[in-house]
Amino acid sequence: MSVTGPQGFRAGSAAAGLKSSGELDVTVVVNDGPQAPAAGVFTSNRVKAAPVLWSQQVLRGGLVRAVVLNSGGANACTGPGGFQDTHTTAELVAELLRKEGLDVGPADVAVCSTGLIGQRLPMDRLSAGIEQAIRSLDRDGGADAARAIMTTDTRPKTVHIVRDGWSVGGMAKGAGMLAPGLATMLAVLTTDAVAGAATLDRALRQATRVTFDRIDSDGCMSTNDTVLLLASGASGVTPPVDELDAAVAAACQDLAMQLLADAEGSTKDVTIEVRAAASEDDALEVARTVARNNLVKTALFGSDPNWGRILAAVGTTSAQFEPDRIDVAINGVWVCRGGAAAEDRSTVDLSGRLVHIVIDLGAGTKSATVWTNDLSHAYVHENSAYST
Amino acid sequence: MSVTGPQGFRAGSAAAGLKSSGELDVTVVVNDGPQAPAAGVFTSNRVKAAPVLWSQQVLRGGLVRAVVLNSGGANACTGPGGFQDTHTTAELVAELLRKEGLDVGPADVAVCSTGLIGQRLPMDRLSAGIEQAIRSLDRDGGADAARAIMTTDTRPKTVHIVRDGWSVGGMAKGAGMLAPGLATMLAVLTTDAVAGAATLDRALRQATRVTFDRIDSDGCMSTNDTVLLLASGASGVTPPVDELDAAVAAACQDLAMQLLADAEGSTKDVTIEVRAAASEDDALEVARTVARNNLVKTALFGSDPNWGRILAAVGTTSAQFEPDRIDVAINGVWVCRGGAAAEDRSTVDLSGRLVHIVIDLGAGTKSATVWTNDLSHAYVHENSAYST
Repeated sequence: MSVTGPQGFRAGSAAAGLKSSGELDVTVVVNDGPQAPAAGVFTSNRVKAAPVLWSQQVLRGGLVRAVVLNSGGANACTGPGGFQDTHTTAELVAELLRKEGLDVGPADVAVCSTGLIGQRLPMDRLSAGIEQAIRSLDRDGGADAARAIMTTDTRPKTVHIVRDGWSVGGMAKGAGMLAPGLATMLAVLTTDAVAGAATLDRALRQATRVTFDRIDSDGCMSTNDTVLLLASGASGVTPPVDELDAAVAAACQDLAMQLLADAEGSTKDVTIEVRAAASEDDALEVARTVARNNLVKTALFGSDPNWGRILAAVGTTSAQFEPDRIDVAINGVWVCRGGAAAEDRSTVDLSGRLVHIVIDLGAGTKSATVWTNDLSHAYVHENSAYST
Repeated sequence: MSVTGPQGFRAGSAAAGLKSSGELDVTVVVNDGPQAPAAGVFTSNRVKAAPVLWSQQVLRGGLVRAVVLNSGGANACTGPGGFQDTHTTAELVAELLRKEGLDVGPADVAVCSTGLIGQRLPMDRLSAGIEQAIRSLDRDGGADAARAIMTTDTRPKTVHIVRDGWSVGGMAKGAGMLAPGLATMLAVLTTDAVAGAATLDRALRQATRVTFDRIDSDGCMSTNDTVLLLASGASGVTPPVDELDAAVAAACQDLAMQLLADAEGSTKDVTIEVRAAASEDDALEVARTVARNNLVKTALFGSDPNWGRILAAVGTTSAQFEPDRIDVAINGVWVCRGGAAAEDRSTVDLSGRLVHIVIDLGAGTKSATVWTNDLSHAYVHENSAYST
């Protein structure tokens, strides 16, 4: 399971004291090769954390030997000193791995951080934690690594998609600020397939575009989002491109649904499927707009099939539609047809966690799906009571 | 006070039983002239309620003799039947006013509705209520009219701006879904100044653009928003255009701040002022994006001066800025300078209801202000427990 499922990877973790809880908060994932091509996608937020700026540079080379991740501090909005901290971190990881006999330079080390924005990391504690994490590097270290990156997550998220002689593994964290262009999240995917950096890049972008990018828990975008895909080539198998694409997509989808199910304070996992749109862009705009509407989200928290709020949200988009041609179904009941009341809304069953909303725009043949959560008392509580 | 403050206006109200509470829910405002030019601005939501579609047609003529308003039902997403209901309502009002000796046709009667979306109005009750409202038309009817349009408002909103020999009065409702292009609201402004329809239109658009349009309580836009300005000319005074503009703007600003202070479940009134932007559009985009960010809003509910979330929100905009040149002040404390921590955030006093956030983009000379509220437990409760 996790990042050490595929051959060629080790992980080691430590409790460095970055989290006040004393739990694991630093982890290092090492690609032992024989190859080390990699791809990455990053937050589209223009206020980028220092580790994002660093890792974007690293990924330009298409090669990653190791990833160091910490929770307990985002190292975002920390100025030039914060960037220097990230640089120092990568140098330390490279130096320690070279002592273990690996051929690693700082420019081969990606860095990911998550936690409170605007505070410098305690570098003494982090350095000690990294030393300890590297001492504990192990082929079975994946489970601990997934725990070390948790913030307000209530459980670790891991995946392992096994194919014929090769596999894709992964871990992710992120329980709030799940939004487009990416959800707040750190995710590291690994594979022992043989594949070049360009192939990995294509597979990763295709996959994130319809998975992580379409989770929109609370409409907020993080400064730190990072998804990495590392290939060791250790299986010796070069899978057909479409099979690799499919396995990476399956791993991303699995992790994305785990993130959704553990979103801060949520009581509903909501699928918003827009059909019969004039274009995929239209479908996506409508789905995302409904997903972000606080009145829709609070209604769902209250198990209220308030389709009028859905139509009001659709009406704020620039998508092609006529108001009197829109149909809406909630959990299978077509509560709205032709822009007006249809089947009895009292027959909609919203008692469970899963909610499926279908919006038929009657304007074309394209579709898109976005996943979101409701807006609950617990969301307000978690995000007002804690500085995360 | 209210719409009957200026000369030439009467209002009458009734409890028609549209609200289950038995409170006032129908009101008719009549312009006794001698003139009846009018202007209106309406929701930019593309899913428009029947009364909005009707009143837009009425306003094209630049003349309004009467406005009939109801709470207890939005008459939105009600199909052709709903539009017919609005038409019938205007005809009834015109017919009853003609019996009173006024020269009114249905095309001179604006209609406004507010309440639940997706349900037809009970026309028998509404008609009886209109008859009763018209029987009670009175020069002192303004206060009751302001109460009759309330939904989840906890108090009526009225204004009366008195100038030399003429005045501007008004009423408004709206306590949720306060958002751009307009806040959910019905507002009727009246003046006894002498002014043509084009002058009124200009004054109203200028005023709403920087008042009602810049309240963004929860980012949600209604299907029913309507702001009307009626002039009776009864004072015989033709004020200079800039004085009329200023008085209309003052009335709109006053009502807008009353709406903000009574927003559903809010505990903070938040002013977001963006300075040193490259353009007013940039300033507005940044202010609105921060105003709509649920993590910023929940932090404010928790009295947490979490400037990192503000920067993360700014980073999602397309405004011109460099992340390392942004300064942020919260209630006078510059917690962020140059994109990094500055003055001690623990010195920010967020104990009161008023919060003033200044975001200096360091990119130009333009500015804009948006007003919003926090995101509270009570907001979630009100919007999940009730279908409004």
